[in-house]
Amino acid sequence: MTRFDGVQALVFDVFGTVVDWREGVARDAAPVLAGLGRRDIDPRAFADAWRRRYQPAMEECRSGRRPFTRLDVLHRENLDGVLRDHGIDPATLGEAALDDLNRAWHRLDPWPEAVAGLTRLKRRFVIAPLSNGNIALMTNMAKRAGIPWDAILGAEVAQAYKPQPEAYLRTAEILGLRPEQVCLVAAHNGDLKAARACGLATAFVHRPTEHGPEQATDLAPSEAWDVVARDFQDLAHRLGC
Amino acid sequence: MTRFDGVQALVFDVFGTVVDWREGVARDAAPVLAGLGRRDIDPRAFADAWRRRYQPAMEECRSGRRPFTRLDVLHRENLDGVLRDHGIDPATLGEAALDDLNRAWHRLDPWPEAVAGLTRLKRRFVIAPLSNGNIALMTNMAKRAGIPWDAILGAEVAQAYKPQPEAYLRTAEILGLRPEQVCLVAAHNGDLKAARACGLATAFVHRPTEHGPEQATDLAPSEAWDVVARDFQDLAHRLGC
Repeated sequence: MTRFDGVQALVFDVFGTVVDWREGVARDAAPVLAGLGRRDIDPRAFADAWRRRYQPAMEECRSGRRPFTRLDVLHRENLDGVLRDHGIDPATLGEAALDDLNRAWHRLDPWPEAVAGLTRLKRRFVIAPLSNGNIALMTNMAKRAGIPWDAILGAEVAQAYKPQPEAYLRTAEILGLRPEQVCLVAAHNGDLKAARACGLATAFVHRPTEHGPEQATDLAPSEAWDVVARDFQDLAHRLGC
Repeated sequence: MTRFDGVQALVFDVFGTVVDWREGVARDAAPVLAGLGRRDIDPRAFADAWRRRYQPAMEECRSGRRPFTRLDVLHRENLDGVLRDHGIDPATLGEAALDDLNRAWHRLDPWPEAVAGLTRLKRRFVIAPLSNGNIALMTNMAKRAGIPWDAILGAEVAQAYKPQPEAYLRTAEILGLRPEQVCLVAAHNGDLKAARACGLATAFVHRPTEHGPEQATDLAPSEAWDVVARDFQDLAHRLGC
């Protein structure tokens, strides 16, 4: 735990690490698909398909082919695409319904122990999201779910999408901290690898059902991260909170 | 109160409106000045002198003569200037002590009823600072004082200093709201005037001793703001929280 002596802020991946995006999106997509007479589409598969467009959409911004564009906009474009992939013309839903479904990402529920764990961690550390989600999305999600963030940080504040180094380095700088005074908490080895390369401390949290019962990725830490925890309560315990 | 039907977020001026900067800065400057053998300098006058350099420093950024620079940096430069004005070479203090004194702005206390009022307002509205203070400053202040912000917004997020229109307009846009869905709460008529020109709703709160017992400015609303309140508890009452 020596590595943790100087850590003053914990910054969190959110989709998958703090909240269960798959079940939340499926819950809100189900009545919409049913209303279209498309009970043949599994809402969880729909959520997975929507999420598969996430990295390619951000890659347009990371590569410089497109200026930084907030995630609400990318999600909305991706929604049109995934609907069309299922043979649904987005126009049949109408803009208000499309916007409401797009805000399913604002209404995701935290994993069961997450808010209690964050509340303990907040006693000792500054806690903030370092998510690719935009500020409004993170703020609305936190307000609905009672997530007690000290600040809303992340891609929109840094104007860079993870795993670009700027996302991690600018976040530390904005907090007035050196990279080693900040720890990324994530359920994804790739995110932690990029954070470590920037000098941040790293904490892996197990989320073995983010992608459902058949999940094949991120089931175990791929490197010796500074902390490995079962969940956020376990993380709080390990960090002496 | 018709004007308030669509308001979803309250954004707050902070220095003077939420916290008492004059007493807080004076409290932290007093032992430093005493340690330098300069008990002849009134710490409140020192705070006033430091604050007088605030608008001119931001004006360099607003005018475009200098790129946007966060307030911690401007405050630190201004501290050097105000020390020299009092015949003190900043180098005699050393960088660590200068940095600590500069963080007096992170340790300001809220007006007595402010946290209780914000806690009530938070039940109905998204609440966030729209301050010229930077993110780390606002985050550290809130954590120390228990200010329950939903997000940390303001000049650094908008990359523009009030009263530039971009500070207000980008803040609304970041929240995913139209200007009329956002209300600025401030003790300063000039700030409210600029916000109203951008289409925001406006709430004036009386802070008649921000500048001490001799205060001559902002003792009353200069226009018919949408709400006028005695303090944050009164504001919560008037907004039905």
